[in-house]
Amino acid sequence: MKSVAYKILEKHLVEGQMIQGEPIKIHIDTTLTQDATGTMTYLQLEKMGIDKVKTDCSVSYIDHNTLQNGFMNADDHRYLQTVADAYGVYYSKAGNGICHQVQLERFDKPGQTLLGSDSHTPTGGAMGMIAIGAGGLDVACAMAGIPFSLKMPKIINIKLTGKLKHGVAAKDIILKVLEILSVKGGVGNILEYSGEGIDTLSVPERSTITNMGAELGATTSLFPSDNQTKIFLEKQGRGQDYIEIVADEDAIYDEVIEINLNELEPLVAAPHSPDNIETVTSLVGKKVDQICIGSCTNSSFTDLCTVANILKGKKVHSDVSLSISFGSKQVLEMLAKCGALNDILSSGARVLEATCGPCIGMGQSPKSDAVSLRTFNRNFYGRSGTMSAGVYLVSPEVAAVSAIAGVITNPMDIEFEKAQMPATYIIDDSMILVPTRDKSKVIEKGPNIKDLPSKEPLSTIDKKVMIKVEDNITTDHIMPAGAKVLPYRSNIEKISEFCFSQIDENFYSRCKANDGGIIVAGDNYGQGSSREHAALAPMYLGIDAVIAKSYARIHQQNLINSGIIPTVFENPHDMDAIDLLDELEFVDVANLEVDQPLVVNNKTKGTSFKVLHNLTSEQIDTIKNGGLLNTIKKSVMN
Amino acid sequence: MKSVAYKILEKHLVEGQMIQGEPIKIHIDTTLTQDATGTMTYLQLEKMGIDKVKTDCSVSYIDHNTLQNGFMNADDHRYLQTVADAYGVYYSKAGNGICHQVQLERFDKPGQTLLGSDSHTPTGGAMGMIAIGAGGLDVACAMAGIPFSLKMPKIINIKLTGKLKHGVAAKDIILKVLEILSVKGGVGNILEYSGEGIDTLSVPERSTITNMGAELGATTSLFPSDNQTKIFLEKQGRGQDYIEIVADEDAIYDEVIEINLNELEPLVAAPHSPDNIETVTSLVGKKVDQICIGSCTNSSFTDLCTVANILKGKKVHSDVSLSISFGSKQVLEMLAKCGALNDILSSGARVLEATCGPCIGMGQSPKSDAVSLRTFNRNFYGRSGTMSAGVYLVSPEVAAVSAIAGVITNPMDIEFEKAQMPATYIIDDSMILVPTRDKSKVIEKGPNIKDLPSKEPLSTIDKKVMIKVEDNITTDHIMPAGAKVLPYRSNIEKISEFCFSQIDENFYSRCKANDGGIIVAGDNYGQGSSREHAALAPMYLGIDAVIAKSYARIHQQNLINSGIIPTVFENPHDMDAIDLLDELEFVDVANLEVDQPLVVNNKTKGTSFKVLHNLTSEQIDTIKNGGLLNTIKKSVMN
Repeated sequence: MKSVAYKILEKHLVEGQMIQGEPIKIHIDTTLTQDATGTMTYLQLEKMGIDKVKTDCSVSYIDHNTLQNGFMNADDHRYLQTVADAYGVYYSKAGNGICHQVQLERFDKPGQTLLGSDSHTPTGGAMGMIAIGAGGLDVACAMAGIPFSLKMPKIINIKLTGKLKHGVAAKDIILKVLEILSVKGGVGNILEYSGEGIDTLSVPERSTITNMGAELGATTSLFPSDNQTKIFLEKQGRGQDYIEIVADEDAIYDEVIEINLNELEPLVAAPHSPDNIETVTSLVGKKVDQICIGSCTNSSFTDLCTVANILKGKKVHSDVSLSISFGSKQVLEMLAKCGALNDILSSGARVLEATCGPCIGMGQSPKSDAVSLRTFNRNFYGRSGTMSAGVYLVSPEVAAVSAIAGVITNPMDIEFEKAQMPATYIIDDSMILVPTRDKSKVIEKGPNIKDLPSKEPLSTIDKKVMIKVEDNITTDHIMPAGAKVLPYRSNIEKISEFCFSQIDENFYSRCKANDGGIIVAGDNYGQGSSREHAALAPMYLGIDAVIAKSYARIHQQNLINSGIIPTVFENPHDMDAIDLLDELEFVDVANLEVDQPLVVNNKTKGTSFKVLHNLTSEQIDTIKNGGLLNTIKKSVMN
Repeated sequence: MKSVAYKILEKHLVEGQMIQGEPIKIHIDTTLTQDATGTMTYLQLEKMGIDKVKTDCSVSYIDHNTLQNGFMNADDHRYLQTVADAYGVYYSKAGNGICHQVQLERFDKPGQTLLGSDSHTPTGGAMGMIAIGAGGLDVACAMAGIPFSLKMPKIINIKLTGKLKHGVAAKDIILKVLEILSVKGGVGNILEYSGEGIDTLSVPERSTITNMGAELGATTSLFPSDNQTKIFLEKQGRGQDYIEIVADEDAIYDEVIEINLNELEPLVAAPHSPDNIETVTSLVGKKVDQICIGSCTNSSFTDLCTVANILKGKKVHSDVSLSISFGSKQVLEMLAKCGALNDILSSGARVLEATCGPCIGMGQSPKSDAVSLRTFNRNFYGRSGTMSAGVYLVSPEVAAVSAIAGVITNPMDIEFEKAQMPATYIIDDSMILVPTRDKSKVIEKGPNIKDLPSKEPLSTIDKKVMIKVEDNITTDHIMPAGAKVLPYRSNIEKISEFCFSQIDENFYSRCKANDGGIIVAGDNYGQGSSREHAALAPMYLGIDAVIAKSYARIHQQNLINSGIIPTVFENPHDMDAIDLLDELEFVDVANLEVDQPLVVNNKTKGTSFKVLHNLTSEQIDTIKNGGLLNTIKKSVMN
């Protein structure tokens, strides 16, 4: 009667009952961090008073801030290398690849739990494991051996029947799911894939699907650990890591969605949301200015080898800039060895480093008003670095055939060979440094790495509204990424200047003038990236509470961890009556209790309304303490 | 009796007498521009009222601003592509490689003249041609068919005897010349290489030497066109471009410097000047944090194949970040094809795009206080993007052996095979777009591309001193490059905010408050990059004159082209008596004449002193008109 997800969660259950919606705690086997969220994570870990990490395996990756314009990035890398070495964390050097790709190749094991300070951590679900994205502090806690708290998710079964046709890719499956469920359709849910359709999907293809489950807001997505898993692990020289984990034949799911792969055609997520799905057919012939292939969603060896097969003997259109970023050193080395890289280079593609790159706005911003096709996972407004550009999310196949044609083209109409996995992958872990755990070595902190800010314990909340925003605000809106802002990820004071800057350039100065205040927001507030800076910066600026219609999971937890209370309108229409700079008083907030609504007085308008919260008693304690780090410090001192 | 330089100049002489120091004009056969100087160049060309370029061949390269953080770079690329197409200029797409490397591979021809809006244009001298760096406006003029004006240079013969030992490279030859002549030792000179020592130097090796002649301030450097030239051209499929051009046996030179290659050992240019030469031996064992291989100086196939030979089977030291930027698509494709790229990747090197990259501060800034070994041409203070870092300029061999050891290492002590040129290079010019000259197509100008500023004709100069600086100020000091500033190269108004910002953050506001003024400087003012923005930005800010002890050639001409009068102290000690914000009046400057000193009244101090100038009557006209573009517009209208 058990699903794959249920079986793995059950094995890791530390506390609570596995009833949907009930708080549970699970043991975390492994963690990952990347450099944009990692410096905060390890600064927090250093405060926890542990000697070394308590996980089976923790890895620190450098894949985000690799352009290095100014000393800040390199200083962060050095800090991460030295702190990893001291605390017993593996360190994957810049150039070794994107965290999720390398983790899948070299670390992920069926049946395990993985917590990562990156929203695309669920990529690991392709390996038949529970892989969850979280804020950096949650990952630091996991490294310190503290179980991870969540509410028992609803388990939705995505049943795939049939088989993908020529030119239709794994990317189109997840775009289809996004069309069905929307960007908030996964919140509180685990998506478990099954059906005959999955038998023909390799682990790298599955990873495209689990990766982009993040765009649904899902807790995680996963596949069973089956013959495909075995094949992939063996080719990676890790056959010993294989165990079979499949759902019972009579497994119970909370919901079942069926997708017939035979009927699927190439899809596109049009600007500016990953669930704004159109068919490629409807866009065929549209002139394209830029194409970017890569990212943790679509940069496996097989993806890029298929791209090379399409490009072979052809030339990129003169009006198109095609860039390719490789998933990992392994991918790049294999492409070079088998000759596929020559086909890519000869076509006139620009080859970039094996990093996140343009997917996080780190370079390759298109020209003004550009049409940019990208094999990435997010096309939020402005994320490419060019506000006037429209980003279309597509499969590598659509990207490659369109690069040659110069216009959006349907790969179903083009002959090419889909690449297969190699007999064996090239195994070389020399860019992954094994920690010495030598505490006598210096942990190097360059001048950009600032101490953590902290928050006072909760007493009263009586402050003005600092911003009022619509539905589906992303953490990119709250705390932009890109080359200008990312270098300050270790410097909350500095990075706070950019908070909400893309939609309200006065937010920072308004908070400074009012000693912070309250954020009012619509549905699905905080979707997207797991960056806890989207909570830490508001916390630093004196934000005490958010009132929204609903939240994305990771961001809600990040708010709690930062001591900011996330509340929801009892009556969503109450939002309409609130204006910027209204003074709101949360009545008797210091006595916050489980399931008890709060009354909010709008002192400017002379009105009152109720807000709800779904906080557990533990989360309430955290907020009362002024954040999770204060709670942990308290418990360490006791 | 004629040198190679004399023969080529003689063939191109349009006006003047070939007597050292006399003004001459020469015909320009070919031009090159890159994207950081190119947008200004073509904006100026558009003002000249010509239908298409009048050169044999002109090429526009994209190699500087390729990170694309924001829409500005991509908009510049699109402008350059569309304007090149209309005016009959070849367009080398981003990713095709560094201008000087691609020009050498695919365009340079013995006996020709080349004018390029990049200070390292003399790279072409390796092909037995006269290749000169100049400001963008000079290059625009050359494209418009206007002969290039210069003073007949002194021709210095660098006679190489003997042969390089194992581990000693072409880079060490030019570092030796820098030690002998210093960064201002080449001003007004052409360096012509000869002697038995050159027979064993391939064209790519020669190009390292001619390239870095720019660091001497030389007008250009060149080698004869001989058997090595023939071999290289044949391997590039361009045997038909070969003609022999060698010096007469009794050729007369103004000066001869002899270097015995047998005695040469690996050298280093230590921070912060390319002529601060030390031996590698003296630095052996020094811990290294970062190593960057590439740039127009050292990124040929043979350079990088030698690097691959050294790295093969070895691993980059765990504390070192090694990055490799390829000279061109041809280089990268060949390395991929012959397996060398696999050796590079397997070692743990980070591979970057085939662009200028870190050499111009475009990424890969090292950590704070880092020791960074670079195979580049300049190690000016702050150019790496990290003010506290020390950059050491070295050969690819020193870089590669040190990357493995983690400390500075002498390649003479290490066994490896020096790479040879391939039987034939891979020829694929598909990333070089052939212009259609179709004037009906739209020339696209994105919102960052602003109209050119202009200057009023000269009347009086009575302004305050806006800055007073020491010897050897580079154009990097005047107008910084790097990822933050370079995107504004098409926007003089915006880029002017950064003028002198690295050494005096108040220069911009001071100029704004005083409506501009006068710059006072020491020796060799304006060395380094050819960027005319170092003159255009001061011009925009209202700078009317510079008083210096001496000038670098290209910058002096850029000042003249911008209508700023470059004067020198008659008595260098007069500089000591001038302070910031002193008000200086240039007496009767409107009647400026050839060879006539000017009297300057220091109205603040109540003193007077004399300044000289070496302007030709043509240059005086240009200054009186308020710059060269005004002069050309006048002549077009007449």
